[in-house]
Amino acid sequence: MSLDPIFKPESVAVVGASRTEGKLGYTVLKNIKEGFKGRIYPVNPKADEILGLKCYSSVEEIPDRIDLAVILVPYSSVVDIIRSCAKKGARGFVVISGGFREAGREDLEKELVNEVRKVGGRLIGPNCQGINNPHMGLCASWPFIGKPGPIAIISQSGTIGAYMEMNCEFLGISKFVALGNKADVDEIDLLEYLADDDETKVVSIYMEGTRDGRKLIEAVEKCSRKKPVVILKGGITEAGRESIKSHTGTLAGRDEVYDAAFRKAGAIRASSLEEFLDFSIALSFYGPRKIEEVVVITSSGGCGILASDAIEMRGMKLMRIGEEKLKKLREEMPDFVVVRNPLDLTGSAYAELYDEAINIVDNADAYLLIFGDPIPGAFDVVKKHREKTIFVSYLGGGDVEKDEVEKFRRSGFPIFPTPERAVNAMHAVRNYWRMLNRG
Amino acid sequence: MSLDPIFKPESVAVVGASRTEGKLGYTVLKNIKEGFKGRIYPVNPKADEILGLKCYSSVEEIPDRIDLAVILVPYSSVVDIIRSCAKKGARGFVVISGGFREAGREDLEKELVNEVRKVGGRLIGPNCQGINNPHMGLCASWPFIGKPGPIAIISQSGTIGAYMEMNCEFLGISKFVALGNKADVDEIDLLEYLADDDETKVVSIYMEGTRDGRKLIEAVEKCSRKKPVVILKGGITEAGRESIKSHTGTLAGRDEVYDAAFRKAGAIRASSLEEFLDFSIALSFYGPRKIEEVVVITSSGGCGILASDAIEMRGMKLMRIGEEKLKKLREEMPDFVVVRNPLDLTGSAYAELYDEAINIVDNADAYLLIFGDPIPGAFDVVKKHREKTIFVSYLGGGDVEKDEVEKFRRSGFPIFPTPERAVNAMHAVRNYWRMLNRG
Repeated sequence: MSLDPIFKPESVAVVGASRTEGKLGYTVLKNIKEGFKGRIYPVNPKADEILGLKCYSSVEEIPDRIDLAVILVPYSSVVDIIRSCAKKGARGFVVISGGFREAGREDLEKELVNEVRKVGGRLIGPNCQGINNPHMGLCASWPFIGKPGPIAIISQSGTIGAYMEMNCEFLGISKFVALGNKADVDEIDLLEYLADDDETKVVSIYMEGTRDGRKLIEAVEKCSRKKPVVILKGGITEAGRESIKSHTGTLAGRDEVYDAAFRKAGAIRASSLEEFLDFSIALSFYGPRKIEEVVVITSSGGCGILASDAIEMRGMKLMRIGEEKLKKLREEMPDFVVVRNPLDLTGSAYAELYDEAINIVDNADAYLLIFGDPIPGAFDVVKKHREKTIFVSYLGGGDVEKDEVEKFRRSGFPIFPTPERAVNAMHAVRNYWRMLNRG
Repeated sequence: MSLDPIFKPESVAVVGASRTEGKLGYTVLKNIKEGFKGRIYPVNPKADEILGLKCYSSVEEIPDRIDLAVILVPYSSVVDIIRSCAKKGARGFVVISGGFREAGREDLEKELVNEVRKVGGRLIGPNCQGINNPHMGLCASWPFIGKPGPIAIISQSGTIGAYMEMNCEFLGISKFVALGNKADVDEIDLLEYLADDDETKVVSIYMEGTRDGRKLIEAVEKCSRKKPVVILKGGITEAGRESIKSHTGTLAGRDEVYDAAFRKAGAIRASSLEEFLDFSIALSFYGPRKIEEVVVITSSGGCGILASDAIEMRGMKLMRIGEEKLKKLREEMPDFVVVRNPLDLTGSAYAELYDEAINIVDNADAYLLIFGDPIPGAFDVVKKHREKTIFVSYLGGGDVEKDEVEKFRRSGFPIFPTPERAVNAMHAVRNYWRMLNRG
């Protein structure tokens, strides 16, 4: 069954909508109303109107077909609600309510799935933080994230998913799915669906366990050939696996097995939440790139050294700049510049020097530009050379820096807070290229 | 010779002071004037007054004794200026001007040192970003950092030093020294001085190379017994060492040698700029603590799992909560709470639950509190249990979160942006305790 009724509905019922600010039934309705252009049917027997929308006392009362049902009622009523929505045509179901397997009610959870499968529908959750498709203006989740873009986020944890959505919004989100108990739809289904979704340029998954390791690896492999799959996996230690049991009841296998399989399947594996974020951002922005030889241009000698270490430690190289170009740099750069790679523009650096340097040394696979001082115009230089592979680390916290950082963010250009994080992200981009081009 | 004339002068001459906003000679004078309570003598032959201070046309004209000379004149005049200042009594010299060894003028640099040593003085620099001692209101550097506190920062890189100052200011700075070419004073002298400095609770050093490895290790060892020494070393790869040669001309030895020696000497080694910051913050706030068994209290199951992995991977343990306490938790916590360690308060968490949980499970070595949702009151709970070892990770970016994060910062309580960074910082605190208590 396609997941289209979930991600691309024409009409949405919000069952368990609330008039009370602060309640989820209010927040979710508000977030859907914020951007969704289709029909919206709040259902709440006690209200005539919520947020200016006519409210229905029961699903049965809704005068038209429903495509997607977003359900927030208490667990004991969910099966009935699914049945009623299905009768109204719904084939997509997002159950935010908890109280199922995670609370010892596996029986109820099975009933949900049965009802959904009977009509050939698909279900996200239960016990989850909803879904978001900014390309449809459909934020059936929280917080409200509206900007459409390339990153699909699939998360077994609502908080980790929301963290990613918030920090990736400057680039834009293609889909967000909080898996919850994944009684029906899981990461495997989503990998298959998103592999063919043109709006999605990278699939980022936080996962804990999976129902079928072999199928997961197959899905990762297929998807990875088309677009990068970034995976953060919880439960890589015994203690972590123990924690998983009570979080989502999933059994997680030993990490060594996953690690080898993920690698073989071409996944880009993150080892921390921060890497998960950085890799997702970098891969969605740069895609695969051949990066072996890097030129570092810096206003800080010390940061240039940290970057050199980070590049070499990850198996990349500082490019050797040819004699002719070195000569040109020596001739055309001011005296205070230390001509080599890293090219140290020193604390006297100004934006035009970065520009000149890239013009002269125009043959690197990638550039790491480190702005360690308040350098106005940094963004303009980077924009000018956008066709090149430029990674940016902007360190400062002063007013000039905040201004420049804001310019980068507004235009959707990623910047990294330290040289090492920039290099690490660069490495992920390079690894994806190597994966695609391995023999 | 003591470094007191540098850090605790009664009078300061700023030679090369400037009237022009944006110039270093202006910025440095302005920053000194901002907080310094002693006498300040700007020297500039072309100005009568700068920033409301009477300006002298030459050092000779200064009517009184000078303790510290901060020098920003072009390199060719520095030797003469040092001589004149020495005649006026100066024994502390901070030479910000460049143009010495890093520019091939080792001869001139030797002359500087000779002049300073003749009178028994000490010199910081040349080619450096100055010094700061907020406890004296003496910011002879940039940017302006005014809050006095426990962290001493020694940096061979001005930018890395400034980055640390800015990000540690919420806790407060005891000293900042940009080493520059370290013609005279180097990290060894400073370790010896700061080991006995009561204002300093942690010494954080970014270094590239050293003149005498054995002496450095001795100094680290002595200081480490009194307070933590956090070290970030650039040049751990061949490429990094090559970069160092042109940055400060230092020869850096192979990293394996340093690593073993640092470890033996009790240093806490950081492997990235981010770790350097996190370790410095954690050690200055917590000092050494015995941390083997940790309790994680979280509003996010996923983050609890990531924390579990991080704790176990670093050789610490999730504490096993005793039967009695488990029973009490089950009785007193709401139904939605998943009672175990990590204690998962779920998305329905509110601040009082963290409080109750700590009251019941009161016997952990350390607590990691993860606030993954907008939870008002988080800071108040942590403050209440301040006598316990509590690490905090606050993930969100919404308004409630910003508010809470601001409360933590204002009160000088560190928070970490991800669970893994909190655990990593906790590990540094534990390692320092183990170092102090090893056989």
